[in-house]
Amino acid sequence: MKESLDFIYKEQKELSTFSRIAALLGWDQMTYMPKMGALERSEQSALISKLAHEKVISDEFWNHIQILSNNKDNLSEKDKAVIVRLEKDVEKSRKIPSDFVEKMSKTTTLAYQAWEEARGKNSFKIFSPHLEKIVELEKEYCGYINLPGPQYNTLLDDYEEGMTVDILKKEFSYLKTNLVEMLEKIKSSHIYKTQKKIDIKINQENQKKLCQIVFEKMFLTNDKARIDISTHPFTTSMGSDDVRITTNYGRENPLFSFFSTVHEAGHALYELEMPRNEFKDTVISDSPSLGLHESQSRFWENMVARSISFWKHFYPIFQEVSGFRELDLDKWCKLVNQVKPSLIRVEADELTYCLHVILRFELEVDLMDDKLQISELPEIWNEKMDEMLGVVPQKDVEGVLQDMHWSGGSIGYFPTYAIGTIYSSQIYKKISEINTNMQSEIEQGKFENVLNWLRENIHKYGRILSADEIIKKACGEGLNSKVFVNYLKDKYYNLYDI
Amino acid sequence: MKESLDFIYKEQKELSTFSRIAALLGWDQMTYMPKMGALERSEQSALISKLAHEKVISDEFWNHIQILSNNKDNLSEKDKAVIVRLEKDVEKSRKIPSDFVEKMSKTTTLAYQAWEEARGKNSFKIFSPHLEKIVELEKEYCGYINLPGPQYNTLLDDYEEGMTVDILKKEFSYLKTNLVEMLEKIKSSHIYKTQKKIDIKINQENQKKLCQIVFEKMFLTNDKARIDISTHPFTTSMGSDDVRITTNYGRENPLFSFFSTVHEAGHALYELEMPRNEFKDTVISDSPSLGLHESQSRFWENMVARSISFWKHFYPIFQEVSGFRELDLDKWCKLVNQVKPSLIRVEADELTYCLHVILRFELEVDLMDDKLQISELPEIWNEKMDEMLGVVPQKDVEGVLQDMHWSGGSIGYFPTYAIGTIYSSQIYKKISEINTNMQSEIEQGKFENVLNWLRENIHKYGRILSADEIIKKACGEGLNSKVFVNYLKDKYYNLYDI
Repeated sequence: MKESLDFIYKEQKELSTFSRIAALLGWDQMTYMPKMGALERSEQSALISKLAHEKVISDEFWNHIQILSNNKDNLSEKDKAVIVRLEKDVEKSRKIPSDFVEKMSKTTTLAYQAWEEARGKNSFKIFSPHLEKIVELEKEYCGYINLPGPQYNTLLDDYEEGMTVDILKKEFSYLKTNLVEMLEKIKSSHIYKTQKKIDIKINQENQKKLCQIVFEKMFLTNDKARIDISTHPFTTSMGSDDVRITTNYGRENPLFSFFSTVHEAGHALYELEMPRNEFKDTVISDSPSLGLHESQSRFWENMVARSISFWKHFYPIFQEVSGFRELDLDKWCKLVNQVKPSLIRVEADELTYCLHVILRFELEVDLMDDKLQISELPEIWNEKMDEMLGVVPQKDVEGVLQDMHWSGGSIGYFPTYAIGTIYSSQIYKKISEINTNMQSEIEQGKFENVLNWLRENIHKYGRILSADEIIKKACGEGLNSKVFVNYLKDKYYNLYDI
Repeated sequence: MKESLDFIYKEQKELSTFSRIAALLGWDQMTYMPKMGALERSEQSALISKLAHEKVISDEFWNHIQILSNNKDNLSEKDKAVIVRLEKDVEKSRKIPSDFVEKMSKTTTLAYQAWEEARGKNSFKIFSPHLEKIVELEKEYCGYINLPGPQYNTLLDDYEEGMTVDILKKEFSYLKTNLVEMLEKIKSSHIYKTQKKIDIKINQENQKKLCQIVFEKMFLTNDKARIDISTHPFTTSMGSDDVRITTNYGRENPLFSFFSTVHEAGHALYELEMPRNEFKDTVISDSPSLGLHESQSRFWENMVARSISFWKHFYPIFQEVSGFRELDLDKWCKLVNQVKPSLIRVEADELTYCLHVILRFELEVDLMDDKLQISELPEIWNEKMDEMLGVVPQKDVEGVLQDMHWSGGSIGYFPTYAIGTIYSSQIYKKISEINTNMQSEIEQGKFENVLNWLRENIHKYGRILSADEIIKKACGEGLNSKVFVNYLKDKYYNLYDI
């Protein structure tokens, strides 16, 4: 037992180190790597993936896990928690052949490069053969894991353990109906019809300053966190005390870089709070699902940073740094929460955002079910945009080519954005009930209590519990899109005087 | 044979990938990593080193090498070259016990921390016990490898294969005598006595622009090369098409960032020209010595970028970008080549630079020969500074504690700086003979022919030949400090009107 325990902790430590190295390889590729480094970078990432995978699926590792699993009653609570989680993960990984992992890694690195080129040339054709390969590989993958129900369940499970097409179809169909209905109502409102598009232009230097200020207000100091620039914002960790987010100051409108920074900072706070001490460098020191991770970013982005309370505190700072003084606080808050159906998911407002996600979910399910060909994607994408949002991309860059996820082989990932968004509304409801001072604290720029609640009720569990268990424990019920719809109705019917 | 060949090429490919990953880990640590990432980063680097070392010394690898080595006559020229080189490298690595590697790694990690602390507190005593240990370990290391002659030969050989104390004592003693003599003459000259210290201040943004311009003029485009910022400038490659240099814009005087950029760009050009095609990802695709590598950086820094011809082209650009117009071209060139004995090696002028290196060489040889105690180092350091340069450090930070090399266990490394400098003058002499248009090409900012000569006569060999063989082939003779002395006399007696 002692030997087995020593072995599995040593292996988990090395696996954790491999994953940090992989994170750096990925981060550098998205931020600083010269273009021509791509091919060899793909080989580097593939080698690390291969070594990690070999370790995970080694018979020696599995045998030690089995010894411990068969002696669970003699283990400490901590060791038991680790073994339960580890056995589940390793069992799944052992179903995947090593050469498949390497193949997938190489394919996706090249696909990412092709996606970037396709975007530059606005040509889906440059990307489509790569996507074709990725979908094939995803099907091969589903064959290895083979969860019950549609193949897509297997993909979902990697990001949102236990989630199924059935559950999502139910939640998303309720959500879609309500969002489309709300959007119609809002579009018919007087305020919507008379609301102007206001062009705020702030130079990159000042955008950067604003992002840095809000980042530090969220307790993200430069000794353990940093902001860099990439096409698509993301968060990654190279160590338990080294978290990196990215944003993009390329748009003159500062709202993109600002809210994406707050969003990623929400992820970063969760990353820095993963269980340490006894659980450091174990399979527990991670998030149980991407949806739960997304709940943290969405919570900070929407419930905190788009609130009137937040801007009571931050608008003077914003005005000071940017020199922008054209709007009063009330008009500013309306602008920040302006509903406006648009083409790009990452630029979508809070209300229409989930429609973008549902669109991708529907396409992915159909792709995996062979109800849709890759070549049909651009057209069907546009049809669905028209149907749900009433806007149609004129170029694939504004449509099917806008997100990098598919290039990374992340089919089944998108739904977690909506799951996280729904979770965030449930968390918001709960904190509001428990801490009646929350709004006045936020008005003073004090986020300690909010963060502490998240730490105590979400972060501290790592993967000891599933996302579903954590949300149930924290909020009293599992995923419930009704809470989100109610939250939106409260907020937006008020903003649009409906 | 076929199986052995496949195996050794596969292994070399993975070793090359490991070294690229290690390069990224190191580069990130020096450029962007948040401070608190340090501990886990050291674990990440150690894991990659361990995996690479295990691979190099594995019996399986050695057996395949032996099979091929015993059948050299049946190998292609290419395979033969690879096997000869590989056998030599691996044989050396196999002589070193794994626990020694670990001991050295732990000792140097602590020594580096102590060195930093010692610098902060200006106290050599904090560092000296660590240096004591390192010297002991270096001796242990020499015992394993055990090259003929003084132990220091073994250390030298790691950086400059084939180089010996005997050769260096001869070359360096000639060089030292002549440099000291030239320095005396220059110090007695009218120009030296009346030459003022001119403070040029250029903001970081403009320093950055100037560095970027010269970088691109040296054919280093952003699709395969970039400049970042670190405390100490360095060059590293994450791929055969991904080379990164660093500089530092922290000093207001732009000469540091500018010349360090040209210097590192010289290294970068060599890195990008390492043999590809059949030799890619083999032990051949590297430089045979640090001295030869340094010859490339010194050549571009001193022979090109400090020349009057270069500034005829670049001074108008420099003035345009920086707004600095206080000096005419002649005075500017005198400033850029101003001789001024100083305490810090990395800030030394072209003429006095090698005296700093010779000082370290003399100390290292005596340390390894037990002719010098660690405790005597600061005093002897200062005596030698006085003797050679006529300046004496008032603090150990400006003396014996100034360089990090010893804390990293790099005894035997310093001489390569002088070797490279001497080589660079030999290269310059040769190119000047062959291409009589060189100066007028440089005056027009055209460096193609210079680079092509370096490619054809230095870069293309990788490690097929030794540094000595390459220099002999390219310049007609081996290391010759007389050529360097003549070059310096020509240049500086002219500048100082002697």
